[in-house]
Amino acid sequence: MATQDDFTVTPHSVDGDVDYEQLLDQFGADEVTADQRGRFPDSGHPLVRRGVFYAHRDLDQFLNAATAGEDHALVTGVGPSGPMHIGHVFPFYFAKYLQETAGTTVYIPLSDDEKYFVKDLSLEDIGGYTRDNLLDILAVGFDPERTRLVVDSADADIIYPLASALSTDITQATVEATYGEPENIGHSFYPAVQATHLLLPQLVEGRQPTLVPIGADQDPHVRVCRDVAGKERYDVEKPGALLSKFLPSLDGPGKMSASDDAPNILLTDDRETIREKILTHAYSGGQSSVDDHREQGGDPEVDVSYLLLYYFFEDDDTEVERLAREYREGSLLSGELKELAAEKIADFFEAHQRRREQLGSLEDELEPYRLTEEERQQALGRVGYPDDSAGVRRF
Amino acid sequence: MATQDDFTVTPHSVDGDVDYEQLLDQFGADEVTADQRGRFPDSGHPLVRRGVFYAHRDLDQFLNAATAGEDHALVTGVGPSGPMHIGHVFPFYFAKYLQETAGTTVYIPLSDDEKYFVKDLSLEDIGGYTRDNLLDILAVGFDPERTRLVVDSADADIIYPLASALSTDITQATVEATYGEPENIGHSFYPAVQATHLLLPQLVEGRQPTLVPIGADQDPHVRVCRDVAGKERYDVEKPGALLSKFLPSLDGPGKMSASDDAPNILLTDDRETIREKILTHAYSGGQSSVDDHREQGGDPEVDVSYLLLYYFFEDDDTEVERLAREYREGSLLSGELKELAAEKIADFFEAHQRRREQLGSLEDELEPYRLTEEERQQALGRVGYPDDSAGVRRF
Repeated sequence: MATQDDFTVTPHSVDGDVDYEQLLDQFGADEVTADQRGRFPDSGHPLVRRGVFYAHRDLDQFLNAATAGEDHALVTGVGPSGPMHIGHVFPFYFAKYLQETAGTTVYIPLSDDEKYFVKDLSLEDIGGYTRDNLLDILAVGFDPERTRLVVDSADADIIYPLASALSTDITQATVEATYGEPENIGHSFYPAVQATHLLLPQLVEGRQPTLVPIGADQDPHVRVCRDVAGKERYDVEKPGALLSKFLPSLDGPGKMSASDDAPNILLTDDRETIREKILTHAYSGGQSSVDDHREQGGDPEVDVSYLLLYYFFEDDDTEVERLAREYREGSLLSGELKELAAEKIADFFEAHQRRREQLGSLEDELEPYRLTEEERQQALGRVGYPDDSAGVRRF
Repeated sequence: MATQDDFTVTPHSVDGDVDYEQLLDQFGADEVTADQRGRFPDSGHPLVRRGVFYAHRDLDQFLNAATAGEDHALVTGVGPSGPMHIGHVFPFYFAKYLQETAGTTVYIPLSDDEKYFVKDLSLEDIGGYTRDNLLDILAVGFDPERTRLVVDSADADIIYPLASALSTDITQATVEATYGEPENIGHSFYPAVQATHLLLPQLVEGRQPTLVPIGADQDPHVRVCRDVAGKERYDVEKPGALLSKFLPSLDGPGKMSASDDAPNILLTDDRETIREKILTHAYSGGQSSVDDHREQGGDPEVDVSYLLLYYFFEDDDTEVERLAREYREGSLLSGELKELAAEKIADFFEAHQRRREQLGSLEDELEPYRLTEEERQQALGRVGYPDDSAGVRRF
């Protein structure tokens, strides 16, 4: 397995505005070591091998459990405020990789409530995006035996009582120090819902190391939950975090998000659309003319097409190294690199879309991924709600 | 029907510490007029006739609907933090009176979440009180066709999505101006839950005048909800309020609550316990010796035994007037008045307890009072959640 040091691309230089070292110091997280990278199952995953996931909290506990075959979980969710795009592929398929190679339990919360608190979207809009996002998540192909999907509004019967319990350990002052002034009192409360998401695997299935793969800028969310867990009122471990660098948007370094100016590549885009978006919009590290490029070479470190291959879509380390070398030498042209990236991404998306098209009704497909009544009662019991001995939902 | 002016007791003077006029000015509520008192059905209710409910917001709208046989509702709840006591009798039996005489729809929310946010009680304690309080509410004998009981944690599937929707109209600054600094972020969010309680009849059953009988000091809670309703994002009227004076605790003027020093008369107390509590603890307006009393007479305005009869337990205006007169003249002794009050209260409580004892399991008894699935979907739809066309709970 190639380690990050084998590459001349240093991902630190990719995103000019972000000082990842400083983020580490500021947050008190630790850098992922070569040893830790080597302990990921099945020769690792490009996002780990190539340093996109570059920092962590309590990663060893997670890796220990994963490699020993002990219970361990991963939480990664989505806030349904639009169609899912290429940026969502990474955490969900990373989770799937861990589930397939280490039997990881995967919990996927959809925070439709939070999107209503902070976005100018109607409940109807958010409802539509939620249904759409759920289909994309289902198309990833998680194992229903080891995967639970929760939607805050649709699973409010469990989310609200759990968040109510956890909320007494979170002060308004903490929220405002972490997130700034809330938009409204739903937004004030939301950190308790988020803490519920991150502790949910342990509340349902018992104490176990839990990993949250998340953008480095989202680390404060994890810390609020770790503080709640740290009070030891509940039998849970502090959730760990695997912090990623910001993924590039098509128009160059910076955080990828649906609100960027360049169009995002959507999970529903067809091959021609993907190709058109990349050819038209993908920021290039090449020279302005073919002759100049052949002579001076390009810079893969800032070339979005290269970076998409490097981060995720080209699994083969030898191949990705070859592309960087030939691009730098000038023998690989920008247009050729774009075509290559477009093809790889389209292959991946087409396979995803085929699985999505083969799904039945959302209701039927979702059912095996929803928390069972017994699992709900387990979680309520673990935060202290009394037994539901009379059959009325606990109170 | 006797009006308040027929009585020499001026309830204004009962509670020395409270300036009810000032409360009206401060809150901008209106005094209940003799005309309004006269429009309550079936010759009124002692709490109205005798001015315990002394102020209001939008009472006319409620009375118009009630007298015209149009849809109208009343909301009165309880925070389950202990066994129910004599102070809880008043609003629940007042609600029952309106339901029996005017067909009023009655919604009864139990805010177990709020008690956890603000009290030093475990979820198990609160769960026990909730079950106990529910049995007492069921024993009142509401008509299940026109009555709904909701428990915040047990009905979170509907309470949280509705409160989430309403919460975007309530700022943290409003909450802190109204309630002071919150204990935690659950407490920050709770005003959205309370607004949900007050709008629930309209969200479930359609726009209609809604009355909230509530202690005058609780009026700010209603105003927060009225502000939400006033934004007209939803098809609801602002809930009206019927504001009451503070009921006396056994040890004299002041607000009755379970945390006062004198023991409260609990809804489960037997005849002998009630008698003992009143004889030992009820503050007397009489003289210190029988001879002095016969000569100088007593003051019914501060005599708790008298006030309990006056406010609620003696329905007959002639009889309550006779007691005041004879007490003032000295022919009715303090001990005699206490015995009379104890007997009336015990009669009432024994009838209540008999009904409670005849209840089956809480689950079975509660079932006809819970919101149906159709009612839940109606309410979610009225705040804007999309149709549940695929059968998955709306999102």
